[in-house]
Amino acid sequence: MLTEMDPLTQLKALVQSCIRDFLHEKREHALEIGQELSHLFDEADAFLRGGKRFRATCLALGYLSHAPLDFDGDARTAQRVTYAATALEFFHAAALVHDDIIDRSATRRGRPSVHSSFTELHIAQKLRGSSGHFGLSMAILLGDLLQSWADELFQRALDITDDHESRASAREQFNTMRTEVTYGQYFDVFEEQHAGFADHDTQLSRSTRVLLYKSAKYSVEAPLLLGATLAGGGPALLQTLTEFGVPVGVAFQLRDDILGVFGDSQETGKPSGDDLRSGKRTVLVTLAREKLPASAQRLFDEMLGTDLDHDQVEMLQRTIRDSGALQQVEQMIERNVSRASELARSTEVSAAASDSLARLAHKMAHRST
Amino acid sequence: MLTEMDPLTQLKALVQSCIRDFLHEKREHALEIGQELSHLFDEADAFLRGGKRFRATCLALGYLSHAPLDFDGDARTAQRVTYAATALEFFHAAALVHDDIIDRSATRRGRPSVHSSFTELHIAQKLRGSSGHFGLSMAILLGDLLQSWADELFQRALDITDDHESRASAREQFNTMRTEVTYGQYFDVFEEQHAGFADHDTQLSRSTRVLLYKSAKYSVEAPLLLGATLAGGGPALLQTLTEFGVPVGVAFQLRDDILGVFGDSQETGKPSGDDLRSGKRTVLVTLAREKLPASAQRLFDEMLGTDLDHDQVEMLQRTIRDSGALQQVEQMIERNVSRASELARSTEVSAAASDSLARLAHKMAHRST
Repeated sequence: MLTEMDPLTQLKALVQSCIRDFLHEKREHALEIGQELSHLFDEADAFLRGGKRFRATCLALGYLSHAPLDFDGDARTAQRVTYAATALEFFHAAALVHDDIIDRSATRRGRPSVHSSFTELHIAQKLRGSSGHFGLSMAILLGDLLQSWADELFQRALDITDDHESRASAREQFNTMRTEVTYGQYFDVFEEQHAGFADHDTQLSRSTRVLLYKSAKYSVEAPLLLGATLAGGGPALLQTLTEFGVPVGVAFQLRDDILGVFGDSQETGKPSGDDLRSGKRTVLVTLAREKLPASAQRLFDEMLGTDLDHDQVEMLQRTIRDSGALQQVEQMIERNVSRASELARSTEVSAAASDSLARLAHKMAHRST
Repeated sequence: MLTEMDPLTQLKALVQSCIRDFLHEKREHALEIGQELSHLFDEADAFLRGGKRFRATCLALGYLSHAPLDFDGDARTAQRVTYAATALEFFHAAALVHDDIIDRSATRRGRPSVHSSFTELHIAQKLRGSSGHFGLSMAILLGDLLQSWADELFQRALDITDDHESRASAREQFNTMRTEVTYGQYFDVFEEQHAGFADHDTQLSRSTRVLLYKSAKYSVEAPLLLGATLAGGGPALLQTLTEFGVPVGVAFQLRDDILGVFGDSQETGKPSGDDLRSGKRTVLVTLAREKLPASAQRLFDEMLGTDLDHDQVEMLQRTIRDSGALQQVEQMIERNVSRASELARSTEVSAAASDSLARLAHKMAHRST
């Protein structure tokens, strides 16, 4: 039974080495072609150093739900799980690099986002033309590369998977994940362009769809399923992990909604009230708005998505808290975590994984960053 | 012996059906998740309908260089080659969608580029926020999807390749191609930001590197090698196809340089003198500049990359022609085509492919669009 978090701590170290070795291998080849490519690798290195490795952890726990995960004793398994987990981290990095362009985010993981960083390089080197467009172009290209490399890493994981059937299923899941998260981002971009809130039920179902595809399925369910499939888990386990993973993913994103409004900028690395300034129609904001009387709702709509000062942010935070929506979302998180915790104890899940899954659910739902 | 172009014409039709069927399959699934995704598929459909299918053709000829290509009699081969060729067309589409953002190109393949098209949609639907940023965001996402889908299609081709060794080599070549073309684009973007021309030799070697990685290796050599590898061709054939493919690719890109300065806008679908206005430091422009006396060179540098009117474009065209650089580049093209034509008759290459390869070399070097 897994009483310590050790294999998961070990996994994070293995993923970090795998990132380093893979980038080193690519860098050697790249610098033979052109020295300028070193900037690209410096960025990739720095970017991939950050992150909470939630997706890698979910993948390992999916694996452990079906089969033992002994990183010291079983080199092939260690290699397979490490490659697959690293592939998820690369894919996620690729998605974030492009997402930061789309969201115009200047920071990520406590440092400048990739496009900002290349913009700064352009300024520092006094290059010609638009620094912003240079940053954007380089970030598009780095995202593309990271996406290709995610795929290469995933291929390496499959190459050391003996079972033909689980190899084919894992690949299909990886493909579905890549496509569906992009649909989620598409909905998100589309959603933000609508002139106002839709009627409450439509708005809530749209906001929930973004949450489901951009976050819950992608960040939790898909990695769990991938891990379980690589271990050779069957349909009953996969079903259980879906039923566990979706509520955990929903709780994870609802926490994100709360942090986006109430988060401590010291901890999140983003300005407090960021989601209010960007006007995101999250589930939290949609629920709060519905509870306001018509006149307050109009004011709320007018303020949302504008360049709010500190006092205005505090006022909106108070409005959302007083509306009862914050409490309602906290309760939704609790319900999701408790449903997930029950499923973590399902007989389909190995005893070795149960506790870690329950702890993971709690951790993802109650993070402060 | 292949006397008619029939299998290649057949291939283009097969690729077109494969594109249609694949997008149809994805669209069915997508619309269950959200109707708004139909815009994305309409764009993908329209974009993938265009193009000269040079990469698909090179792949088929690479295959034919080693093994018969009988689309009617051998269903598995037909399927394998069609999937691989379609994968290249998807990957190329992905690269172009992102490249058009980077190059700020408003048109592509005789219609608005993807980001322009989504910008127009934003305006037509009177959506909120920046239309340009919406177009950019959607084009980033569509490019990402097309890249994932290229990979899925390539996996399908490999799934019906029995020989384990050729499957592994083909995959490695696909991976190298994806990475190296992105390096080529990176050099291209970097190159355009330098404040002026480097000294002649450095500039020429930099311009040649962009040409090699962004175009010659990617558009010709890599597809040929992939095709030959899928057919089970050995190292001697691959070496010959590299020696054939690189000069053809160089000629292809040198023709592009000429069309970028002298091309007929009716045929190319781009404004005449496009490369002069964007200030691209192509091999043609670099050679022309070197031949000018110092005073003319200064004027040339000042005009290049500015918003030139019709008369200014004509003046620069005349300058480049009179400098002898146009003739020099035409001669380079001829030398490359003739070297390639000799290699097409190598005994390593099947008799069935020789003529088609020689014709392809000529066609790629002498196109007018």
